[in-house]
Amino acid sequence: MMALPASVDLREVGPRDGFQNEPETIATTDKVALIDRLARTGVKRLEVTSFVRPDVIAQLADAREVLAAIDVPPGIARSVLIPNERGLDRALEQRDRFEEIGVFLSASETHNRRNVNRSVGASLAGLDRVITRAREAGLRVEAVISTSFGCPYEGVVERGRVLDIARHLANAGAEEVAFGDTTGMANPRQVAEHFEAAAAALGEHVQLTAHFHNTRGQGLANVLAALQAGCASLESSFGELGGCPVPPGATGNIATEDLVSMLHEMGIDTGVDLDALLDAARAVREVLGRPLGSHTLVAGPVRWEPAG
Amino acid sequence: MMALPASVDLREVGPRDGFQNEPETIATTDKVALIDRLARTGVKRLEVTSFVRPDVIAQLADAREVLAAIDVPPGIARSVLIPNERGLDRALEQRDRFEEIGVFLSASETHNRRNVNRSVGASLAGLDRVITRAREAGLRVEAVISTSFGCPYEGVVERGRVLDIARHLANAGAEEVAFGDTTGMANPRQVAEHFEAAAAALGEHVQLTAHFHNTRGQGLANVLAALQAGCASLESSFGELGGCPVPPGATGNIATEDLVSMLHEMGIDTGVDLDALLDAARAVREVLGRPLGSHTLVAGPVRWEPAG
Repeated sequence: MMALPASVDLREVGPRDGFQNEPETIATTDKVALIDRLARTGVKRLEVTSFVRPDVIAQLADAREVLAAIDVPPGIARSVLIPNERGLDRALEQRDRFEEIGVFLSASETHNRRNVNRSVGASLAGLDRVITRAREAGLRVEAVISTSFGCPYEGVVERGRVLDIARHLANAGAEEVAFGDTTGMANPRQVAEHFEAAAAALGEHVQLTAHFHNTRGQGLANVLAALQAGCASLESSFGELGGCPVPPGATGNIATEDLVSMLHEMGIDTGVDLDALLDAARAVREVLGRPLGSHTLVAGPVRWEPAG
Repeated sequence: MMALPASVDLREVGPRDGFQNEPETIATTDKVALIDRLARTGVKRLEVTSFVRPDVIAQLADAREVLAAIDVPPGIARSVLIPNERGLDRALEQRDRFEEIGVFLSASETHNRRNVNRSVGASLAGLDRVITRAREAGLRVEAVISTSFGCPYEGVVERGRVLDIARHLANAGAEEVAFGDTTGMANPRQVAEHFEAAAAALGEHVQLTAHFHNTRGQGLANVLAALQAGCASLESSFGELGGCPVPPGATGNIATEDLVSMLHEMGIDTGVDLDALLDAARAVREVLGRPLGSHTLVAGPVRWEPAG
C-alpha cells in the first residue's frame, strides 16, 4: 500500500509563471477575468503577478493594474513574485492587495548568474533583506529554489548544497521553501530521495513545496514520488502554461487539471472543483488562441456512462 | 527509498496500436521502414501488425505485406495481434515471420460486446482455442485484458473479476498477461494495489505487463506505481501514437521516448538507445505530418552543457 497524504495544498501559478512565458501580450482585462475565475475554483493559493522590471518581462508590466483590479474572495491567498528590494518597494505600495510573496534564486551558480546576474551568495544576502522586510510588513514568504533537481549548464546540483540554501532561507524567515525543477530534469527516484532528505533537514518548521515541470512528460510521476516522500504542497499551472514556449510544443509547469484529476482519482482532497478549473483552462485557451499541453482539458475528467 | 526493478522489459506497440488509430492511410513501405528502424533501437519486443478483418481496420489491411517485408534482427521478438481463429489461420500462413502473438478481450461485458460483439465468456472460450493452437505452433502468447482499470460504460471494473480472467488466460497457456488501461482511467494508487494483488494471485508463473494510456497525463505516474508494485514489463508507443485521434490532441499510449527517458534517469535499464528511438519518433512524425504527443521528442533528452 502506498503511503499518501489525505489532502494537498495547491498553489496555482499560471497567472505569473504561465503568463510571463507567453510571447503575445495578454490584455490586462483578460488576466483579471482569468484570475477572478481561478479564484472561484476552490484553489486556496494564487500567484497573481510579479514585480519584476517591466523592461525585463514586459508581459507582467501591468502588475500594479492587475493587483488593483482582481476580485479574489477572502480566504484565497494572493501571492506576488518579488525579485529584489526594489520590487518589494513597488509591491508594498499595494500592501492590502496581497497576502504572500515569493522570492527566488537558483541552486546552481551558473543558472543564478544567467537569470539574475549575481552569485548565489549575493542573492541570498539580498533575499535576507527582502524576507525580513516582508515579514515586518505582515506578509507570508515562500522562497523558491530553482534548478533544485538539475541545471542545464552544470548538470546535477549536489543535494547538500540545495538543502543548505533551503536552511538559510528558512532561518531568514521563509515559512515555505519550494524546490523547482526548472528545466524538467528531475526523476521520481531523485525526487523521493530529495523530499525525504529535505524533511529530515528542515523538520516541521517550514512548509516544503514541489514545483515540477512536465518537460519530458514525467511531471505527475514526480508528483507521485514527492507525495510518497511526505510532500503535500504543490505548485502547478492551469492549461500546462509556463516554461519556455520555444521550441513549439515544449511544455512548462504541470497542468493543474491533470494534477487535480490524478489526486482526486487517488482519493486525495484538493478543495478544487475540477469542472470549474476546466472552465478556467478553456477560457485561457480561448484567450491565447492555441492548443495547450493539458491532457484533461482535451480528454475531460474520468467519467463513464451506460451504453445507449 | 523506493523499491524499483533494476531493468524492465519493453514492448513497442506503435506499429500496431499506434498505426491502427491513424485516420490517414500509412504506406506499407513507410510502415516497414519505421519498423526496421525501431528494431534497431535496442527494444527487444515489437508488435508489428494485427490480423484483424481488413474491412474492420483498413489501416492494418496490409498485415501480410508488412510481415513479409520487415527486416528485424535475430533476438528481437516480432508480435502480431490476433482477434480470433480466422486471424490466427491467416497469420500462420507466415509462421516463420513472427515469434509471439497477442490476444485480447475486455474485462467489462459492455466494452467487450461493443468491441468484439461477444460476451466475455464467449471471448474466453474462443481465446482458449487460439492460445492452444498458437502454443502448438511454437508461438509465445500474450493475453491483453482491456479496461482492466475502468470501463467507459461501466465505470470501475471489480478487481476480482479482472484477476479471474487473468487466471483463466494463464491456465489456458498464456505466458504473459497485460492489463490495459484502455481509456486512461487508472490512477497510481489503484495501479499499485492492482499489481500487488495480481502478483499474489498469479505468482511467478506468468509475466505481468502494464499497458497504460496517457489520456489525462498520468501515464508515467501509473508506470511508477506499477514498478513499485513489482511490475517490470511495460508496453508503450513511440511518438505517443495510439488511442483515439478524436478529439484532436487526445493522447493514446504512453510515449516510449518519455518512458525510456524517465527509466534511464532513474537508473533502470531498458536496453534502448534513446537517441536512436528519438530518431524513429522523428521519422514517424515526418510520415504522419503532424505534431505528436511525446514530450521528449520536443524537449530532447536530459542533457546539460557549460554556459559559453
